[in-house]
Amino acid sequence: MAAESHNWILMATARTPTNIAVIKYWGKRDENLILPINDSISITLDPDHLSATTTVAVSPSFEKDRMWLNGKEIPLSGGRYQNCLRELRSRAGDFEDEKRGIQIKKEGWNKLHFHIASYNNFPTAAGLASSAAGFACLVFSLAKLMNVKEELGQLSAIARQGSGSACRSLYGGFVKWTMGNEMSGRDSKAVQLANETHWEDLIIIVAVVSSRQKETSSTSGMRESVETSSLIQHRAKVVVPSRILQMEEAIRNRNFSSFARLTCADSNQFHAVCLDTSPPIFYMNDTSHRIINLVERWNRHEETLQVAYTFDAGPNAVLIAPNRKVASSLLQRLLFYFPPGPDYELNSYVLGDKTILQEAGIESLNHIEALKPPPEAKDKVPSQRFAGDVSYFICTRSGKGPEILMEEEHALISSQTGLPKLVT
Amino acid sequence: MAAESHNWILMATARTPTNIAVIKYWGKRDENLILPINDSISITLDPDHLSATTTVAVSPSFEKDRMWLNGKEIPLSGGRYQNCLRELRSRAGDFEDEKRGIQIKKEGWNKLHFHIASYNNFPTAAGLASSAAGFACLVFSLAKLMNVKEELGQLSAIARQGSGSACRSLYGGFVKWTMGNEMSGRDSKAVQLANETHWEDLIIIVAVVSSRQKETSSTSGMRESVETSSLIQHRAKVVVPSRILQMEEAIRNRNFSSFARLTCADSNQFHAVCLDTSPPIFYMNDTSHRIINLVERWNRHEETLQVAYTFDAGPNAVLIAPNRKVASSLLQRLLFYFPPGPDYELNSYVLGDKTILQEAGIESLNHIEALKPPPEAKDKVPSQRFAGDVSYFICTRSGKGPEILMEEEHALISSQTGLPKLVT
Repeated sequence: MAAESHNWILMATARTPTNIAVIKYWGKRDENLILPINDSISITLDPDHLSATTTVAVSPSFEKDRMWLNGKEIPLSGGRYQNCLRELRSRAGDFEDEKRGIQIKKEGWNKLHFHIASYNNFPTAAGLASSAAGFACLVFSLAKLMNVKEELGQLSAIARQGSGSACRSLYGGFVKWTMGNEMSGRDSKAVQLANETHWEDLIIIVAVVSSRQKETSSTSGMRESVETSSLIQHRAKVVVPSRILQMEEAIRNRNFSSFARLTCADSNQFHAVCLDTSPPIFYMNDTSHRIINLVERWNRHEETLQVAYTFDAGPNAVLIAPNRKVASSLLQRLLFYFPPGPDYELNSYVLGDKTILQEAGIESLNHIEALKPPPEAKDKVPSQRFAGDVSYFICTRSGKGPEILMEEEHALISSQTGLPKLVT
Repeated sequence: MAAESHNWILMATARTPTNIAVIKYWGKRDENLILPINDSISITLDPDHLSATTTVAVSPSFEKDRMWLNGKEIPLSGGRYQNCLRELRSRAGDFEDEKRGIQIKKEGWNKLHFHIASYNNFPTAAGLASSAAGFACLVFSLAKLMNVKEELGQLSAIARQGSGSACRSLYGGFVKWTMGNEMSGRDSKAVQLANETHWEDLIIIVAVVSSRQKETSSTSGMRESVETSSLIQHRAKVVVPSRILQMEEAIRNRNFSSFARLTCADSNQFHAVCLDTSPPIFYMNDTSHRIINLVERWNRHEETLQVAYTFDAGPNAVLIAPNRKVASSLLQRLLFYFPPGPDYELNSYVLGDKTILQEAGIESLNHIEALKPPPEAKDKVPSQRFAGDVSYFICTRSGKGPEILMEEEHALISSQTGLPKLVT
């Protein structure tokens, strides 16, 4: 390479969705390679509402790897990042841009440093699988930049080494993470069960629950569960394998009743295992319990499963309705029991696909105020409303997998300076 | 019997303690006979603080069975009461009081009706195993009245048919309910592991937690768990049998560390099974979680188990300290985080053995106000206090089993009218 060519900067930008597990991943058999003790199944969420966008840049002028998350520089010391990078470098291809006089040989990637800027279109701290979308996006954009010629499945096995559930964000629609058998972890990867058009009627409402407590990280939480729970192995070896088969069939046949039954039962069992851990882990709080009770009461009243719920490692509820009609009834119920606190605006209280809000007939805060208790509420006791216990709702659906964003305007790093455009 | 002798009333009065399970009973293999799916172990609580007192009266002038609980008449239709009565009648003995001219033959008990008055020296609705103490006391007092010559173990198998955990209230100290094997349930009964003097240092503090929600009854809750939980059988068949052996050894050796570890783990696993039930059952609330976190943080800070916790089918915490010194440190912590709400008085906020309160140096509400955060509280964040989230505390210890109260003044039924002395 000529000395003057040291100023070039190569970049790639990608956007990758989050996902929510309906059969849960909880417990590793290998901490370093991130190999799970059971298969899991997830729905990929619409990236318009819940996704990470990441720009990776490489330049001979960069002196070390650096990363910015939502405009703020964060340390990149983690072994997990290094594991992903090592895997990608070993699969990197030659790169040549004759016009700009750039040439990078396979081996050359080992000497180059990266600048990485990532941005979530939803609050990072809200506990909405931001690390899943983030690592998936990092691996997907780096693979593009480094000319890695691998199928998505192999990329998912690399993203898995950043954050287990990240592997499921490499595909849209419905995704299974097969735990695999090999020591190397090569067969512990994601496969798509159905794409995002397969079951388009499903509507997903996320309730971001206000939390006052610091939660146990899922990494240390699942390690403690594996070490101390006397139920987790029975779950992983006996219960989950049969649920995986049933869930695949429910998704294949768009059987909402079976899908909802399995989703709720598996969320509850995951939290049961957390409680069976020593010391016990509580991710759900009283608000989470109230949301479950709301759904269970409604389901019982209708004598058929209206809505499924699932909770990850935090108090937020993810609610899944079979169609828009039920979703708008659900939103009415949620807004009845959990109206916004003082000084909220409707526009920032219900985010995402606002047409559900319109179909629910709610155009102002006064409409929320005027909501009547649902028919399944007991007549005798006046229904209690819990204003402010939910921070906001996001209405969304199943969405597509990662995509490369070609336009310069989407890049989060300046092609001139090699630094993030937005710094906070 | 001569006609004029129809006015006699025979009575017996007994007092019977409540008990708190440290290895939990959850799940029946026979609903009618109340046969459990696993052994359980409990501590009998001091009857001075938590007990039921019951007077049973019989007279040829009584026209039907009637019962009053805390002065209020309640229906006696339940099959469980009838089951207990049938068992006792089949074992009844002859009774003769020559002076008063009363003679009842074995068979004569079948034709006589009973008046029963029972009184708990603690709030019935507080979820403190009132049905356990109540049925134990009913069976114990009726056995006395009907001249039933059976050992306590056989009486416990009868009380079991009223309320499963009642069988453990027939003994003081530490009690095991052996699940038994026989179809008849005859071998499903209580045995005393150690009496109340065996481990006298233990101090028990009950935190009665304010609850806004109606809870699932334990009868229907455990039935739903057996029907729907995919973890309960593994717990009953694999986990509990080994814990029972370890707990017996811990009690025998007064090994507090092992005792506390098993007690906490088993309470958490019972609640895990409740959560694994469909629909899920939540007995613990945010306040229960905070109490567990308080204990776990303290235990971790001291690097040795200071205190054990256990929760039954409700949000109340039962905390067990190895001695008075630790108990007073525990009470300081509890009162720091859970001070009384407005308009409380100290005297009605800490009940039972008030010497623990004195040893904690707390003589007034101002002393509670002035309590400092415990050393294990994180320095950086100011500790939040949750005034009013606990209704009251009861300081107690392990206590003796049932006793007959001979003095007329203890009887709850008037020997003149055959009706309760106190009616509300």
